[in-house]
Amino acid sequence: MFVNDCLNVNENGHLTIGGCDTVELANEYGTPVYVMDEDTIRTACSSYVQSIAKYYNGNGLAMFASKALCCKELCRIVNDEKMGLDVVSGGEIYTAMKADFPPEKIHFHGNNKTAEEINMALDYNIGKIVVDNLYELELLNQLAKAKNKVVKISMRIKPGVDAHTHDFIRTGQIDSKFGFALETGEAMEAVKKTFQYNNVELTELHCHIGSQIFDIDPFVTAADIMMDFIGSIKAQTGHLITELNLGGGFGIRYSAADKPTAYDDYMNAVSKAVIAKSAQYNIPVPFIFIEPGRSIVGEAGITLYKVGGVKDIPNIRTYVSIDGGMCDNIRYALYKSTYTIVNASHADKAPDTKVTIAGKCCESGDLIQENAPIATPRVNDIIAVLSTGAYNYSMSSNYNRITKAPIIMIKDKTPRVIVKRQSYDDLIQNDI
Amino acid sequence: MFVNDCLNVNENGHLTIGGCDTVELANEYGTPVYVMDEDTIRTACSSYVQSIAKYYNGNGLAMFASKALCCKELCRIVNDEKMGLDVVSGGEIYTAMKADFPPEKIHFHGNNKTAEEINMALDYNIGKIVVDNLYELELLNQLAKAKNKVVKISMRIKPGVDAHTHDFIRTGQIDSKFGFALETGEAMEAVKKTFQYNNVELTELHCHIGSQIFDIDPFVTAADIMMDFIGSIKAQTGHLITELNLGGGFGIRYSAADKPTAYDDYMNAVSKAVIAKSAQYNIPVPFIFIEPGRSIVGEAGITLYKVGGVKDIPNIRTYVSIDGGMCDNIRYALYKSTYTIVNASHADKAPDTKVTIAGKCCESGDLIQENAPIATPRVNDIIAVLSTGAYNYSMSSNYNRITKAPIIMIKDKTPRVIVKRQSYDDLIQNDI
Repeated sequence: MFVNDCLNVNENGHLTIGGCDTVELANEYGTPVYVMDEDTIRTACSSYVQSIAKYYNGNGLAMFASKALCCKELCRIVNDEKMGLDVVSGGEIYTAMKADFPPEKIHFHGNNKTAEEINMALDYNIGKIVVDNLYELELLNQLAKAKNKVVKISMRIKPGVDAHTHDFIRTGQIDSKFGFALETGEAMEAVKKTFQYNNVELTELHCHIGSQIFDIDPFVTAADIMMDFIGSIKAQTGHLITELNLGGGFGIRYSAADKPTAYDDYMNAVSKAVIAKSAQYNIPVPFIFIEPGRSIVGEAGITLYKVGGVKDIPNIRTYVSIDGGMCDNIRYALYKSTYTIVNASHADKAPDTKVTIAGKCCESGDLIQENAPIATPRVNDIIAVLSTGAYNYSMSSNYNRITKAPIIMIKDKTPRVIVKRQSYDDLIQNDI
Repeated sequence: MFVNDCLNVNENGHLTIGGCDTVELANEYGTPVYVMDEDTIRTACSSYVQSIAKYYNGNGLAMFASKALCCKELCRIVNDEKMGLDVVSGGEIYTAMKADFPPEKIHFHGNNKTAEEINMALDYNIGKIVVDNLYELELLNQLAKAKNKVVKISMRIKPGVDAHTHDFIRTGQIDSKFGFALETGEAMEAVKKTFQYNNVELTELHCHIGSQIFDIDPFVTAADIMMDFIGSIKAQTGHLITELNLGGGFGIRYSAADKPTAYDDYMNAVSKAVIAKSAQYNIPVPFIFIEPGRSIVGEAGITLYKVGGVKDIPNIRTYVSIDGGMCDNIRYALYKSTYTIVNASHADKAPDTKVTIAGKCCESGDLIQENAPIATPRVNDIIAVLSTGAYNYSMSSNYNRITKAPIIMIKDKTPRVIVKRQSYDDLIQNDI
């Protein structure tokens, strides 16, 4: 019935998540509030882990891209599901360490890691640093040398595949702030450069072709290209790359129109390509990393708001004001992202109107969705925005000095707070 | 030489702000860092205050729109400059109260104030609540009644003037989430409705026609329309509105192409309109409120970053990675806002190249500016982004778990921290 499997409607006509009544959750925890279903997260984790078991004989590791949602409890759940972690900053490393995440199962990404962050990664013995550029390679070697360490590295490659939601192109993607370009020879040059440094050890190549992708083909093409590059490296230098990181980008359902590929189908097709190319180049099948983020947490989360004023502007539109907005979900303002909106107080009723959901920030562009079908909302109704588990809390701000909403996790029909609501005192704690 | 008067170049060829060397500031406080010049802020405050003295015999109050930048020290400076404060949330009220801002000089705005926020405003005796819609009017009256208070209110009116940077239109602006429409009769109906409530007292009308406006005409037109409405209210109901709030929206210089109107010219033109209309309707000249935000703090602030990797993609572009990004300045990602970029380490050199300034967030869209002229930046150079005093810190996020940058205020060539840098522990303080 809904785009998220953890959602349903109960006998009061209220939306439920993980078996809990969202109207009761809103009353108990206040609004706005992010609510997540733990089983949905664990099922997604498990589907990736099982696919690696099935198609690579377990010779791989699914890493959660924590930029989608980073907090201590998520790190614990992901670790419990036997996944690794992809981090992109000192703050994400710090969060993972405070959640006792095994550092050897962490990859550290980013186009501009600072010296302080690299030192932090070295001190914590983070499993791998994914090098983005030559300056970073040199800096990393120098910092590792100062600590008398040899650090395993991966290298971010631009494979020249640019995948959008429903199509992809094979060229043009060298215009990116991330990584080394293949087609200009830059990547091969960088690979050779690593051999000149004594404190880094190149074992892996990494690529990432885009976000919210529904097709299998671009992933297969990228895998082919990366395997060809591994073959070329072996031919030109004799060096064997033993690990291949194919990144993330797997699409999720924001609306009924979204039709994501089953992860198992993706994994099956890509593994065939990797195995065939391994045979072609007469090398062992590499250890595989994948980095799902959105597809682990996105559909597991919803945001609940309370309706304030409803402003019906005849012949134009109806604005429904909610008690959150671009401070907790900036994705419509930023990307015009589609979301499914549900009147959680009347989830048994079919949509009978279209409204614009307006946030409470003092900015005209603070909208969550325009012309969204919904069962007519009234003052104090609870509104649910679906599929907000990824890139909502993680991108949240204190714009208008609005405090950040808490995250409630549901497991066995029991809610628990995993991130507390910010207090007014939190807001001013760094003000002198 | 620069778009901001507080900037200069010293004998080392470094950019200075308020007489302080930005390269030294970056070394002392780390990067990224927001730096502001207090004299620039105070001069802007004073120019508004003096214009009110000059054109309205002091019969008005300039209010700082704190959504542009809200922290305790800003509240103190603005109070010291005899301005009022325009707030939009409980968090902004709380910040002002903790900075001992006089509550009677505060206006509380917003399209969806929660009951909790309204109660907070009532408890703190906030000077005026700017009512946005009929639901809020009723709720406010009810909450004031419960506290046995009569609260002064303003009413947000859509005057039907939609001003953009260089032009404006007279119609169509009723499609807004804010306020009561004039042309549909909604506003007059709402005014009459206030008379039915015993715990609110309508003394003021408010309008706000847009942001970053350079022309005088739309302000004059809006003032005319609002005065006509005050005349109509008197004629139809006998009720005299004694205060008129003309909002903000005064443009600033982001680049050399921006030519803002002198505030004094604006104030002169608008005051003539208000005085003429007062005579026409045979009413006293109303007490005037204006609400500058961006124009108080925008040009006073810059952001300093350190350059990491420089990625030259032949025939395409050069990416210069900095150690901040959309987490501290989302305005380019959100609005494609123009900014002036300066190589602060070589501010004596004329721009000799064009580069794309890329943030460190793991997102392709995390850019601060594309094709920006600059003196060739190299690794570890300090880059300054100018005119970041407004809507940068206030919209900042912890995306990628990057900690928020501190704000350093310069006065008498002496820097002081007014907002401390967020720590990693701050990031996880609400994580369970």
